[in-house]
Amino acid sequence: MTTIAPIEYGDASPQVRAVYDDIKKTRNVPDVNNFWKYLARDPVTLQRTWQSVKEVMTPGALDALTKELIYVAVSVTNGCAYCIATHTAAARKAGMTEAMFGELMAVVGMANETNRLANGYRVPIDDNLK
Amino acid sequence: MTTIAPIEYGDASPQVRAVYDDIKKTRNVPDVNNFWKYLARDPVTLQRTWQSVKEVMTPGALDALTKELIYVAVSVTNGCAYCIATHTAAARKAGMTEAMFGELMAVVGMANETNRLANGYRVPIDDNLK
Amino acid sequence: MTTIAPIEYGDASPQVRAVYDDIKKTRNVPDVNNFWKYLARDPVTLQRTWQSVKEVMTPGALDALTKELIYVAVSVTNGCAYCIATHTAAARKAGMTEAMFGELMAVVGMANETNRLANGYRVPIDDNLK
Amino acid sequence: MTTIAPIEYGDASPQVRAVYDDIKKTRNVPDVNNFWKYLARDPVTLQRTWQSVKEVMTPGALDALTKELIYVAVSVTNGCAYCIATHTAAARKAGMTEAMFGELMAVVGMANETNRLANGYRVPIDDNLK
Amino acid sequence: MTTIAPIEYGDASPQVRAVYDDIKKTRNVPDVNNFWKYLARDPVTLQRTWQSVKEVMTPGALDALTKELIYVAVSVTNGCAYCIATHTAAARKAGMTEAMFGELMAVVGMANETNRLANGYRVPIDDNLK
Amino acid sequence: MTTIAPIEYGDASPQVRAVYDDIKKTRNVPDVNNFWKYLARDPVTLQRTWQSVKEVMTPGALDALTKELIYVAVSVTNGCAYCIATHTAAARKAGMTEAMFGELMAVVGMANETNRLANGYRVPIDDNLK
Repeated sequence: MTTIAPIEYGDASPQVRAVYDDIKKTRNVPDVNNFWKYLARDPVTLQRTWQSVKEVMTPGALDALTKELIYVAVSVTNGCAYCIATHTAAARKAGMTEAMFGELMAVVGMANETNRLANGYRVPIDDNLK
Repeated sequence: MTTIAPIEYGDASPQVRAVYDDIKKTRNVPDVNNFWKYLARDPVTLQRTWQSVKEVMTPGALDALTKELIYVAVSVTNGCAYCIATHTAAARKAGMTEAMFGELMAVVGMANETNRLANGYRVPIDDNLK
Repeated sequence: MTTIAPIEYGDASPQVRAVYDDIKKTRNVPDVNNFWKYLARDPVTLQRTWQSVKEVMTPGALDALTKELIYVAVSVTNGCAYCIATHTAAARKAGMTEAMFGELMAVVGMANETNRLANGYRVPIDDNLK
Repeated sequence: MTTIAPIEYGDASPQVRAVYDDIKKTRNVPDVNNFWKYLARDPVTLQRTWQSVKEVMTPGALDALTKELIYVAVSVTNGCAYCIATHTAAARKAGMTEAMFGELMAVVGMANETNRLANGYRVPIDDNLK
Repeated sequence: MTTIAPIEYGDASPQVRAVYDDIKKTRNVPDVNNFWKYLARDPVTLQRTWQSVKEVMTPGALDALTKELIYVAVSVTNGCAYCIATHTAAARKAGMTEAMFGELMAVVGMANETNRLANGYRVPIDDNLK
Repeated sequence: MTTIAPIEYGDASPQVRAVYDDIKKTRNVPDVNNFWKYLARDPVTLQRTWQSVKEVMTPGALDALTKELIYVAVSVTNGCAYCIATHTAAARKAGMTEAMFGELMAVVGMANETNRLANGYRVPIDDNLK
């Protein structure tokens, strides 16, 4: 079994369909992304991951756009091409403008740079921040 | 020269002092963080890094708080203890509440998890996102 | 010399052929993977890397399957697409079932999440674990 | 609020106590680790993370020891000192011997090395593994 | 605006063209790489990044080749396919031979391995290096 | 066996002592670093790692200093505090001046930044570099 195939709605078990239905309803989309179709190979992980993502991404103290910007920042730092593509699209849908995207990238780039400068210079944590 | 010492204001060259002064004025703080005192060993890098950070972190399309949340997200993902300490403090100063911190951590954690699920399941980018 | 070409068996030097032969015999495969064909550009690194991999991956206190699961866990965490492809295949060959793959991904995802929660909450090591 | 304090059992809300109680019962330990005491600042994340970890780490197609070895492999790759300490201890409790630890480290080290060799040599995925 | 397009010289604003012109003159190349054409969507980031890269990569205490080798080492460690491609080419242009490339990869691989062994064995910093 | 102890020369087996002796002779140092004393818990890994490091770090097409600079670049990128400490010291011993250190850090920082900009802007590899 070397070939891994995504599970489309028509081929899905009732358990998987229930998750797909909730994703489509929650996000108001006609179909779910490949991510969910591949994860569906393991219905337990599919279910848990969706429930967690749904809970975590619901607007609360942080709004939907801010949460998507954070998601993109992590994905770009980790170099996950799939996650960069989907969450950049999600951020745009949530209101991210071109100017916001530019500033997001600038902050992510700078943070990755100064993280390493702090490592390399072996900077100890300031007493008032311990 | 195995010992690396931070450069305090009183021992700094005029070039380094000018950077310290601008940091203190821009951020309205009585002293600069250890990061800058260690970076001061290389005045050219100190100057460039500060100018870049200053430009990048100035509120624009994204406000100061959002930028600090992104900075924390990157630093947590990279595991930079120094940067986590300083930018969590900066985010608080910019208005991050405990509830916001909790949601920030939740999104960062979830993004790091799903980044790896996307890698491991070898999920191809959806056609409409290419 | 911008084009990097893999070295096929027929074009290989005796030193490189000897490594290819040992890989094919040890793994009982008709040909070596691209990894070795590219590494063959530097016969010293090819030789050392194969000897190390061979020694490390030989079943000992941990069996072959467990070692491949660990290899996949690292490769997924690092986002190395090539290594994910080859070591997932190797794990399957060593007996990894679909259910095992699902649980492997679930653990890798969760570990990457909690690693960042531990970073972000700045959790100190418990006294009894120091 | 610059100081982040762990929440001990005696100071915890009923919701947090219920999670602590379940952790202690599930793992048969007298007290929960610092990780949970810090996470308790955000009871929603505490609850979700524990439920997820509990589900993921329950022996299934992979046994408890194998899951802990994978957890250590990820934590070592990410350089999360806290997670290395706790999950190495958990792996030992689940039966990891010194010989197993040595082989685990050897595989993790080798995987991190060959991941980069594959990156640097720009090795394309073998046709039969696409 | 889901499609991100690179900005070619003929379509660029005077501000962007000035950066392109300086890149072409500094590096003595007929056209700029895709990196700059994509970054041009945010002229402020384009300008700052180019100024920084130009300043940092100018030969000084370290020569141009050594700087490119370091750039490749970081890019390989991070798994940035784009950066590996461009900076490996730049290193070759600066004089990197095949033998140098082989040794660079060997050091990068070994460093990534021993970084994890140090993490996993929880090795404390030697007293004379603190 | 929760406590991991380094193995000092006087307590080492003949196999471990032979490695220590070779390290001391090769590097002309009175004692080996903690790294080797902790790795000695697994004599097979100690032996293989030392042989590999010795082979890789021997001056060849790249000199000793350049190799140490690359080692530091990787360690800083990965945030391995132990490796940063030891290899920065080794680089100094091999001739790294303060000016070189400053430029090394500047390049490492910039590479980590532009790696993420390339990721985030989803820059495709230039046709002539494929």
